[in-house]
Amino acid sequence: MPNPSDKVQLKTKKETIEGLLMPSFDKDIILIKLDTGYNIGFNKKDVQKITVIEKANPPSKNLNQKKEHKETKETKQKIFHNPALPTISVLHTGGTIASKVDYRTGGVVANFSPEELLALYPELKSIANINSELVAKMWSDDLRFKHFELLAKKIEQHIRSGATGIIIGMGTDNLAVAAAALAFIVEHTPVPIILVGSQRSSDRGSSDGGMNLICAAEFITKSDFAGVAICMHENENDNNCNILPATKTYKLHSSRRDAFQPINTTPIAIVHYQTKTIQFLQKDYPTRTNDKPIIKPKMQEKVGLLKIHLNMFPEQFSFFQGYKGLIIEGTGLGHTPGQVPNPECAIHKKFYPALKSLINSGCIIVMTTQCIYGTVNLNVYDKGRDLLSLGVIPGEDMLANTAFVKLAWLLGNYKPLDAKKLITQNLRGEINTQHQYESQFIPK
Amino acid sequence: MPNPSDKVQLKTKKETIEGLLMPSFDKDIILIKLDTGYNIGFNKKDVQKITVIEKANPPSKNLNQKKEHKETKETKQKIFHNPALPTISVLHTGGTIASKVDYRTGGVVANFSPEELLALYPELKSIANINSELVAKMWSDDLRFKHFELLAKKIEQHIRSGATGIIIGMGTDNLAVAAAALAFIVEHTPVPIILVGSQRSSDRGSSDGGMNLICAAEFITKSDFAGVAICMHENENDNNCNILPATKTYKLHSSRRDAFQPINTTPIAIVHYQTKTIQFLQKDYPTRTNDKPIIKPKMQEKVGLLKIHLNMFPEQFSFFQGYKGLIIEGTGLGHTPGQVPNPECAIHKKFYPALKSLINSGCIIVMTTQCIYGTVNLNVYDKGRDLLSLGVIPGEDMLANTAFVKLAWLLGNYKPLDAKKLITQNLRGEINTQHQYESQFIPK
Repeated sequence: MPNPSDKVQLKTKKETIEGLLMPSFDKDIILIKLDTGYNIGFNKKDVQKITVIEKANPPSKNLNQKKEHKETKETKQKIFHNPALPTISVLHTGGTIASKVDYRTGGVVANFSPEELLALYPELKSIANINSELVAKMWSDDLRFKHFELLAKKIEQHIRSGATGIIIGMGTDNLAVAAAALAFIVEHTPVPIILVGSQRSSDRGSSDGGMNLICAAEFITKSDFAGVAICMHENENDNNCNILPATKTYKLHSSRRDAFQPINTTPIAIVHYQTKTIQFLQKDYPTRTNDKPIIKPKMQEKVGLLKIHLNMFPEQFSFFQGYKGLIIEGTGLGHTPGQVPNPECAIHKKFYPALKSLINSGCIIVMTTQCIYGTVNLNVYDKGRDLLSLGVIPGEDMLANTAFVKLAWLLGNYKPLDAKKLITQNLRGEINTQHQYESQFIPK
Repeated sequence: MPNPSDKVQLKTKKETIEGLLMPSFDKDIILIKLDTGYNIGFNKKDVQKITVIEKANPPSKNLNQKKEHKETKETKQKIFHNPALPTISVLHTGGTIASKVDYRTGGVVANFSPEELLALYPELKSIANINSELVAKMWSDDLRFKHFELLAKKIEQHIRSGATGIIIGMGTDNLAVAAAALAFIVEHTPVPIILVGSQRSSDRGSSDGGMNLICAAEFITKSDFAGVAICMHENENDNNCNILPATKTYKLHSSRRDAFQPINTTPIAIVHYQTKTIQFLQKDYPTRTNDKPIIKPKMQEKVGLLKIHLNMFPEQFSFFQGYKGLIIEGTGLGHTPGQVPNPECAIHKKFYPALKSLINSGCIIVMTTQCIYGTVNLNVYDKGRDLLSLGVIPGEDMLANTAFVKLAWLLGNYKPLDAKKLITQNLRGEINTQHQYESQFIPK
């Protein structure tokens, strides 16, 4: 009989496929990893023949192989409580970090149970007792503001029950913006709340989810940090994880494990995976307290985000009539088309009136930059000054997505006039007024 | 009397200001550079008193100071033709590279004449004879597709008149996307067409415009490259410029001089400013020919670009009903909200029908990623596969803005069915199928 990690040939009525046999949690499914790195699942009843082409090498010291072997042995182990260790709550929301292969499409869907996930990462048990709870089961693309309310209430509940820290597993697509939203919603937390994701699914050899999870747990148990942050790979190797600021992080690559980058600032800390040590890069961070968490989960639904691009039409602005807030992702220092002194371009005369009409209707418009790095400055060019005089608010160096959830949160909890004032004030590290970050830009 | 670069105190009825006296092209205006680096202009008639606080140092070898001193001497020199040198056409369109201080607002507006610009950069005269022409006078934010037609016709005309290369001065906000648009529009060019911009206006000490212009001219006269490219600072120092691929460049910082970064590829070449040498980093680039340029300037106006964000509404998709094409800037590998198996989220059931309805109406929808780096892949997750089955076309590793102008150009020149096929084919280096670029990502 073939064993997991053996190279096998598998025959069905339709096809013959070669690849590595993977451990499968579903006894009716045979799972094959192709050379491309992707997995295909087959119903056992469809498989006519399976032959071993090459036996697997004996287990090596490699992290991922080790994990694959433990998977099969430990899946059914019971979780036990060690009174000498602190307790971390792991809240699952879905995403790649909680995914295995989708047998419908050959792709990956969010469908691991919390117990299966814990079984995959047995290292966690030596760091802390793990309380895990499935809060949602969705790709982060489908998150809505009301899911943050659900999540915030769970966070509050687990902290009040004595968790020494919270880990939130989430899909990576919207992980950074979700972290920003939670940073505003959780107005005070006595313990760390760390979001982790995985750029590769947990049944792939190159999965980063396990190390991100373990580094988050190490960071929670070994540091005095309290606040919302993200824990993801620092680089393409399995040596370090970054602890990243919730409001100033961008997913800057669609697939790399080190896709998550701090913008206009440094990581808060680095977790060295091999030595299990923490190195802080930032000094002013919130620290643990003994009081209770404060959550303010209300968010205004009618807030929009509009990316400026070439050859726009004024209707793209007017669309947001009736919205309470709008984040514009402008070009450069924060610009839009409008009022060019060119008689051929009558259309440009319509942009500022469209903006003005939105502002007159009570919509708060905040300018950010699509450059990702750097700050908005509406004082440099006449274009910016024109926007200022229309009533557009400069969003300083806030990421567009961060400004978006901040404005929605402000409008959910404050009167519009106060929201207008607070949007340009640094509440959760989302605005870096020090401008130290000029040296943090990352060419090469 | 104070001279340019002297530190002065200036008094008006309203205020007293200290700063460096700047050379001014307008005899009625006194121009002061503040410690912040920004300039303020005063009408001479408003100035009550101007006193020298500190005389300027004698001219140093510093590039920018040298330029400031030459400015005053050479502004009125006549341009002469050197028969031993090749001829470069510089087409001005406006932007910071052609800007000085706006005395209306204290900001910067596009209002240098071509002659003034040439006078500012006398080094150009030793490289080539310069034919300069003012094509437009606008911020790049206000560019529309029809301006590219105007520009393309000027390019064609100057090449046919014997230019050894074309330099286009442009505002930086849309410079990268303008380069991409011109790369498609100019189907064939026998000579190089290099876009240059300036992140700091040319009357500021830290201006990069001059060096970018000079490096572009050096590159044109010293290399066999023919095609559309961008020439901007490689780093924050004044040592090198990058020659960047027209279809794979992103303005990744709102103010840094090295804001323009190659995405998923390397620069085409580096121009070493001090040694005036060219170092090619790419091997397969189009080279000079003796034939005529071919331009295809038609572009379809009704093409949109939609950035995916949290908590969207299906109406944001339906808005594009009637459009011929739509670029979606999806999350991660190319995702949108839709069809989450959550009864609380009825709204998610409406996203795919909205997309389907657009596609059924004949709108071509192409998926790109807001991660900037990396590629779209709709085969990994069930979400991607659902989008594929709706008829969404994966935009490979094209930048959203590049895909946007490519689709508009394809729909302006081909039937929809052909446009659909060509959008996923690499026409101008906009798709990097080699995936060598994994190593080009730029953390730190």
